Amino acid sequence: MSVLVIGSVAIDTIETPFGKAKNILGGSAVYFSLACSFFNKVKLVAVIGEDLKKSDYALLHRKNIHLEGLKIAKGKTLNWHGKYFNDLNYRETLKLDLGVFSDYEPVIPSEYNDCNYVFLANIDPKHQSKVLNSINSYKIAAADTMDHWIKNRRKSVISLIKKIDILILNDSEARLISKEANLFSASRWIQKKGPKVVVIKKGEHGVLLVHGNKFFGAPAYPLEKTFDPTGAGDAFAGGFMGYLSQCSKITHKNLRLATIYGQVMGSFCVEEFGVKKLLNLSKKDINSRVRELRKFSVF
Amino acid sequence: MSVLVIGSVAIDTIETPFGKAKNILGGSAVYFSLACSFFNKVKLVAVIGEDLKKSDYALLHRKNIHLEGLKIAKGKTLNWHGKYFNDLNYRETLKLDLGVFSDYEPVIPSEYNDCNYVFLANIDPKHQSKVLNSINSYKIAAADTMDHWIKNRRKSVISLIKKIDILILNDSEARLISKEANLFSASRWIQKKGPKVVVIKKGEHGVLLVHGNKFFGAPAYPLEKTFDPTGAGDAFAGGFMGYLSQCSKITHKNLRLATIYGQVMGSFCVEEFGVKKLLNLSKKDINSRVRELRKFSVF
Repeated sequence: MSVLVIGSVAIDTIETPFGKAKNILGGSAVYFSLACSFFNKVKLVAVIGEDLKKSDYALLHRKNIHLEGLKIAKGKTLNWHGKYFNDLNYRETLKLDLGVFSDYEPVIPSEYNDCNYVFLANIDPKHQSKVLNSINSYKIAAADTMDHWIKNRRKSVISLIKKIDILILNDSEARLISKEANLFSASRWIQKKGPKVVVIKKGEHGVLLVHGNKFFGAPAYPLEKTFDPTGAGDAFAGGFMGYLSQCSKITHKNLRLATIYGQVMGSFCVEEFGVKKLLNLSKKDINSRVRELRKFSVF
Repeated sequence: MSVLVIGSVAIDTIETPFGKAKNILGGSAVYFSLACSFFNKVKLVAVIGEDLKKSDYALLHRKNIHLEGLKIAKGKTLNWHGKYFNDLNYRETLKLDLGVFSDYEPVIPSEYNDCNYVFLANIDPKHQSKVLNSINSYKIAAADTMDHWIKNRRKSVISLIKKIDILILNDSEARLISKEANLFSASRWIQKKGPKVVVIKKGEHGVLLVHGNKFFGAPAYPLEKTFDPTGAGDAFAGGFMGYLSQCSKITHKNLRLATIYGQVMGSFCVEEFGVKKLLNLSKKDINSRVRELRKFSVF
């Protein structure tokens, strides 16, 4: 049992009202993998340039993340420079250099063929579909997407979601793709296209999980300070898929717990710059926060 | 034990994408009283003109709502005509005629002096303070307010909240009054001014209850269709205060349950035009929805 993730590895420069971090390790596949690694083996598929620091590479290796699918290409690693404003809900991309990511087509190494769980992080939906088709056998496929693809590659996004079991997206994206203002109606619209499970992230308002005709409202962990929101969605997905992949069965109860573990990983992620907090966590910290979240929402 | 409410009684005309209702009974004190009446005796303080239909008056009387404090003045009842747009989160006031409400100063009849719980619905904060000072003895005072008063009568709002135990407001109002983007920080700011309990309504995202240093995240009832949002906040407050007032003690557990009963009353309210749904409910319907809400959020 292991989890395969296809996404980006990046070098980020992040500015928030609380400070600035220059050229730090980032990217959807990195946040996902680090969060997921607390629960299961992770097999990463991504591309980097020749400029990624050896220490970053070693860091992923140390965390039980398989790197046979991490291609090193001639050129520069994806480079993103973003700035968050006062309420942290709005960010601006100051610089984006796709580097070796711009003409990358993911290839699954043969060593990865035992993966039961596949997560297609947010990349071009055409590549997400193509790479999913190239995987011989898997049990569950989940994907993330974003407003950019929904607006500009709508057909490809819909063609992708027909093939997957779980779609993870945020509330504005769910409304955008379904053209429904109500999130329950939006999730039914998505389910009709394919995925039995729809996970709608609502930031500080928690998560709505829709599984068949069952709903679950997961609270957000009560955080008084968000330090850096970068990667929170991918850390959520990593916790969600990681927890689910080590369950013997996909029951509604397990999906609820997976959502909670996802929430917890996302809440840790935003407490420090980049992946820093995810590197300094223990399983005990994670389980303790799950208990806190239960206390916060029980009645 | 009973609950005193000071607020408005109105004649509303409401347009939503689903239809129009003309000249129906409305107003904050009406929604509050009807929701609260399922839990405890309600004593209403408000003003109406000579034009309010006898059937509307009789309706309130039938529902266990005491009307000794309902003043009938020469002139017209407060008249509001509002229109909701497609996603129901935005509404426009097409007409507002304050009528007899414009120079109304609430007076508490002596028959009401046994009220332990007081709810100051959303009126001018100066009147809220004045009327609270005029009540001889009460156990718990709660108040609602709105962006209009926070923007234009900030000092009066702050002077009011120093005197109350519970402030009920929505998320944008909590941010506006505290100048804090984070709702936990906003609630701490409010608590420092006076109220030990802060109830922040987040519409479709549920409610955040803050009690001393304890937090509770209450889910919103999963509604696929909202028909008419008018009065939902007052119905919430009615359920909240109604449930709380019949508890022997104000414990954190009881405050959580009060929040849930509030959520349930608000969710019923929006399912039909005006107060219609609140008139056709049983205690069994309410308790059944509380159980559904628990199922929706447990993990």
